[in-house]
Amino acid sequence: MKKSPAKPAPKSAAAAPAPKAILPAGFRAAGTAAGLKPSGAPDMAMFFSDTPAVLAATFTTNQVRAATVKLDAQRLAEIGAAHGIVVNSGQANACTGPRGMKDARDMAALAAAATGVAPEMFLVCSTGRIGVPLRMDLISGGIRTLAGALSPKGGEDAARAIMTTDTRPKRWTATFDASGVRCRLTGIAKGSGMIAPHMATMLAFLMTDAAIDRRAMQKALSAAVADSFNKISVDGDQSTNDTVLFLANGRAGNTPLRPGQPGWDSFLAALSAVTSRLAEDMARDGEGASKLVRLELAGAKTAVDAEAAVRSVGESLLVKTSWVGTYPNWGRIMDALGYSAARVDETRVDIAYDGIPAVRRGVATGVAQEKLSAVLAKKEFTISIHLHLGRATARLLTCDCTKDYVDINCD
Amino acid sequence: MKKSPAKPAPKSAAAAPAPKAILPAGFRAAGTAAGLKPSGAPDMAMFFSDTPAVLAATFTTNQVRAATVKLDAQRLAEIGAAHGIVVNSGQANACTGPRGMKDARDMAALAAAATGVAPEMFLVCSTGRIGVPLRMDLISGGIRTLAGALSPKGGEDAARAIMTTDTRPKRWTATFDASGVRCRLTGIAKGSGMIAPHMATMLAFLMTDAAIDRRAMQKALSAAVADSFNKISVDGDQSTNDTVLFLANGRAGNTPLRPGQPGWDSFLAALSAVTSRLAEDMARDGEGASKLVRLELAGAKTAVDAEAAVRSVGESLLVKTSWVGTYPNWGRIMDALGYSAARVDETRVDIAYDGIPAVRRGVATGVAQEKLSAVLAKKEFTISIHLHLGRATARLLTCDCTKDYVDINCD
Repeated sequence: MKKSPAKPAPKSAAAAPAPKAILPAGFRAAGTAAGLKPSGAPDMAMFFSDTPAVLAATFTTNQVRAATVKLDAQRLAEIGAAHGIVVNSGQANACTGPRGMKDARDMAALAAAATGVAPEMFLVCSTGRIGVPLRMDLISGGIRTLAGALSPKGGEDAARAIMTTDTRPKRWTATFDASGVRCRLTGIAKGSGMIAPHMATMLAFLMTDAAIDRRAMQKALSAAVADSFNKISVDGDQSTNDTVLFLANGRAGNTPLRPGQPGWDSFLAALSAVTSRLAEDMARDGEGASKLVRLELAGAKTAVDAEAAVRSVGESLLVKTSWVGTYPNWGRIMDALGYSAARVDETRVDIAYDGIPAVRRGVATGVAQEKLSAVLAKKEFTISIHLHLGRATARLLTCDCTKDYVDINCD
Repeated sequence: MKKSPAKPAPKSAAAAPAPKAILPAGFRAAGTAAGLKPSGAPDMAMFFSDTPAVLAATFTTNQVRAATVKLDAQRLAEIGAAHGIVVNSGQANACTGPRGMKDARDMAALAAAATGVAPEMFLVCSTGRIGVPLRMDLISGGIRTLAGALSPKGGEDAARAIMTTDTRPKRWTATFDASGVRCRLTGIAKGSGMIAPHMATMLAFLMTDAAIDRRAMQKALSAAVADSFNKISVDGDQSTNDTVLFLANGRAGNTPLRPGQPGWDSFLAALSAVTSRLAEDMARDGEGASKLVRLELAGAKTAVDAEAAVRSVGESLLVKTSWVGTYPNWGRIMDALGYSAARVDETRVDIAYDGIPAVRRGVATGVAQEKLSAVLAKKEFTISIHLHLGRATARLLTCDCTKDYVDINCD
């Protein structure tokens, strides 16, 4: 996904979002176990809007892209609208060649036929093992089940069915006011490994019953993704399948939302709230993660430097393993800053843990180690780094790297 | 360290190097336990040439550099010769400010006084925890012991005393012929974590009794380092302390070696053999590593692309954890190629494990999985990747990432 400058979240006129999958008007969903996962866990989901919905989307920037990503990107460009999305977990349909493209197209067509809409109006997402052809026999059975099970209350089932190594479903619902009309925006996502800025190994499905101008919606989505999903990192690996799909069906009956019009800022606030909460859930549920760490970097010479410095720290395996315990090993942060592509002058660097200064001008402040250890013992903390070379800032949501990460990823 | 183009190792006129620390003529060494490590393990070493030796060196390119690196770099530029090197493990003397610089200078001066040479003729290396001031009380005691213990047979003790998380000493000795004079070249190194191309968290000390032209020696060292230590990666983290020091004291009595003269190629072969073996030892002894993996990348459009692609694969945590088991998860290699900065066309990529084709034109070859699993079960194997976009190649020595890596690095 192309990087776009992060915008601060607008002041919210919307209520705080709830960690629930309450679908907007006109949307139905379902989840089922089609047999793709050896565990027998749910592995297919469907999202469906009773009327055609405007589509916005963002995709992985990986040069190796799953067949589903190629198909959805093509439909975004050519059609810009959709009725539904069919998703499977367990198999990625990436590196599967022409057969993979045919399978993706067939999967969409089967879902469209089962729900009675045109084949091009369905989108497809897959997540799971790369290089294995889809088990279309199982998938076609799953699609029939899903189409029959679609329900306005099916959001939770769908949220569970798209999970892979996720330990819990990720879904948030916000409401907002569009020129006097109450609208709802719901996000359902998966992702916990192969997570890096510029799209994680993640799928996110956003649905709203608001009417929104298509171009403005795409811009708003790109900005929200840049500020949420692109600000998390679990392992620095970027997936072949990352996809964010956003459907707006206009069933709330509001005047279509556009920038500068009443309700636009409330919509942006709701979008920002839902995507940010989903992103936080992903970092918190990072494979093998026991702690959520917020990195705040300030004082970089340029925005590019700020980004390079914060990622070098947040993606350093040595830094991330050091967070498992409670020893404040800030030397590894200094090291990662030093080898980053950013300009760094070690004699100017300040580092603080939840506001407690550990490093000033590149050397230890002498603060009692117990104070810093108390921060590191928390489940969530912030590390602030100031380079004192300029005004650029950057942030990254990340996590520690425990032995469980390795366990999960050794086949 | 600046990158220099890798040269193929010249055809060797020298005998195969031996995994021993047999010091060249005129060199002595010692190791001792000065009390810097809580375990009581040896933690200080000294290398000494009875006559002044010509000096060549390479250092970390990290912007955050240990005081010892700054001091040695200064002495390389200003003096270009040295009598000895004093080393401590356990404390890095990095991020220690002006006090760290004074400590490094004092450490050199104490070693020089104890051996009766001028203070500027001693070099200093430290490795261990960043941000903690050196325990100079313990170090001064250690230096007295070392000076008294210097011995032509002290190489093994020194090799053990510089270890940190290393599980075994790393030392190789080669001999070569310089215009009829038998010369010896000995390398002693440490390094197993914070290891990345462009210098690992590593220290290496090279000594020879050959006489060598100083400028030619520096060029030869830079090329050898580019082709050995800069081609290994354990965790992608680059240290603040990386240093390679090379002393040549001329005691063998040969005509000073220069390119084009008899013996030069034999010298290069010996240098290449010793640095390559030391680098392999580091990758094999990578923190928590159970397997040595040789990545060979071909067919990149440019040399920069080749380097970016091979590193993206070799530094991917998902790829490295997948090597712990025996499932040939080549999808993760495709993924890491795809998000690298290199140009990649997935429909052209071939991947083979020890010559067995697993991927052809981006999709599975259909070779029996057991054949690939048998390769992954080995302690050492080669993965060949062909991008089929050009003629550039690159290689990287790396290792798997087991749970032990995390264990070692959680404080």
